[in-house]
Amino acid sequence: MRLMRIGAPGAERPVVAIDDETYVDVSDVVTDFDGAFFAAGLDTLAATVAERVAAGAARRFAGERVGAPIARPHQILCVGLNYADHAAESGQEPPAEPIVFTKAPNTLVGPDDDVHIPRGSSATDWEVELGVVIGTRAHNLDSDEEARAAIAGYVLVNDVSERDFQFRHGGQWVKGKSAPTFNPCGPWLVTPDEAGDVTSLGMWLDVNGERRQTGSTAHMLFDPVFIVRYLSRFMVLEPGDLINTGTPAGVGMGFDPPVYLKPGDRMELGIDGLGRQTQTAVAAP
Amino acid sequence: MRLMRIGAPGAERPVVAIDDETYVDVSDVVTDFDGAFFAAGLDTLAATVAERVAAGAARRFAGERVGAPIARPHQILCVGLNYADHAAESGQEPPAEPIVFTKAPNTLVGPDDDVHIPRGSSATDWEVELGVVIGTRAHNLDSDEEARAAIAGYVLVNDVSERDFQFRHGGQWVKGKSAPTFNPCGPWLVTPDEAGDVTSLGMWLDVNGERRQTGSTAHMLFDPVFIVRYLSRFMVLEPGDLINTGTPAGVGMGFDPPVYLKPGDRMELGIDGLGRQTQTAVAAP
Repeated sequence: MRLMRIGAPGAERPVVAIDDETYVDVSDVVTDFDGAFFAAGLDTLAATVAERVAAGAARRFAGERVGAPIARPHQILCVGLNYADHAAESGQEPPAEPIVFTKAPNTLVGPDDDVHIPRGSSATDWEVELGVVIGTRAHNLDSDEEARAAIAGYVLVNDVSERDFQFRHGGQWVKGKSAPTFNPCGPWLVTPDEAGDVTSLGMWLDVNGERRQTGSTAHMLFDPVFIVRYLSRFMVLEPGDLINTGTPAGVGMGFDPPVYLKPGDRMELGIDGLGRQTQTAVAAP
Repeated sequence: MRLMRIGAPGAERPVVAIDDETYVDVSDVVTDFDGAFFAAGLDTLAATVAERVAAGAARRFAGERVGAPIARPHQILCVGLNYADHAAESGQEPPAEPIVFTKAPNTLVGPDDDVHIPRGSSATDWEVELGVVIGTRAHNLDSDEEARAAIAGYVLVNDVSERDFQFRHGGQWVKGKSAPTFNPCGPWLVTPDEAGDVTSLGMWLDVNGERRQTGSTAHMLFDPVFIVRYLSRFMVLEPGDLINTGTPAGVGMGFDPPVYLKPGDRMELGIDGLGRQTQTAVAAP
């Protein structure tokens, strides 16, 4: 299934995409695609959608805003330097274990919402990433099978970052990752049965029509199953939690001289099977 | 006011402590001490409590479990190395700007709940800290007055930490701060009008009756008003968010050789005016 949330910010309603043109509204049976929903499992929803499609209830998308496909999670966790080429452009060694940091959960926005360049920012940057959404409470997972079963689905994210905030104000990266609008997500969550092999998905990002990032999840140092199992040693992952799994080379910081976002710039990005996003950078109000 | 939540885990009800022996139940007018509650302001509650006390509605505490005085927040932010003596014992320079990291919000527990030593842990440690609870949405605060006004109150916290997870698995501290039960909080939240000068509060922590930490918030490098204003440059603080403001010297890591928690150890800790906590360390199930 491909889960989506459409409607105005804060008033999105959950739907299931049937194809690129049509969807089934499920807002009468699902409050939201939140922790409680994922914890209950998706089987009932799949049956409902099949019935509704058979009954001719599919509707056409009519230009409504697309929100993030998940409600605000308990945590947004991020894995840093998870592609060797990005580690190299950042001037750092590939890590021996996943580097983990967090983003404020209130950074989550829709895939095509504006990205706000924070006040005082001179180094707002892009990062196309595969996002993993947790489906079941996960702690001290004992096997890869358990980790695989704990994944509800995959999403496209732009892990927007402010490099001065991240690196030039003392330790720890959360400061550079947490400004409002810094986590565009969507357009949809695709469930594992339809996602195919998520360790060989092409990914790309353009700024103003110029290709900046080209990569493949095949080059991740740590794959989603490893990451979920690893994180579960240190904390309890909850249904609906989002994990941004890192970005390949081609971020603005990696250019010489660096290239950062300015108001009016347009980002377009995509991952095979996970859709595409388009954001305009604007000065924060 | 002194806000408390009492009852079984996950089923706590909000009350207001009148003194050490009595409280007024407010669970009929307050859903929980959560973001929505703090955003609405505390004036209505204060009036309700005054009426109920006048009407003789105060009850005696009867040994019920005490929970954290706030509902699970959107974020638990932490300031690292915020006392020069603790930075020294950690072998690090006092930071020029606050070091910021996060804890998983699902670490929040009551002040006297057991602390679980994680599987595979050999370095679970204690940290008595002053916690700051946000009262109003805070972003790009322009003055200390605005920052002061954004604070709903203060709490006692034990910022429990696993030093191997924190320092020996690659970058970023969230891994060592986020195990279940790692954020005992309470027994109460005290509002700023009753907290007095929070930059000169004595603080202490004992393990098995032996004094390990003795300090004062007077020795903080960055005080709560500075921290709130500083954080608001990088992210939106939300009502109900918790900020752990750092610990003075005397953590287990600072001893030579280090002294860490083992099952059966008892921690007792307190801060002037914010009450005291007692936790037993147990092996995680």
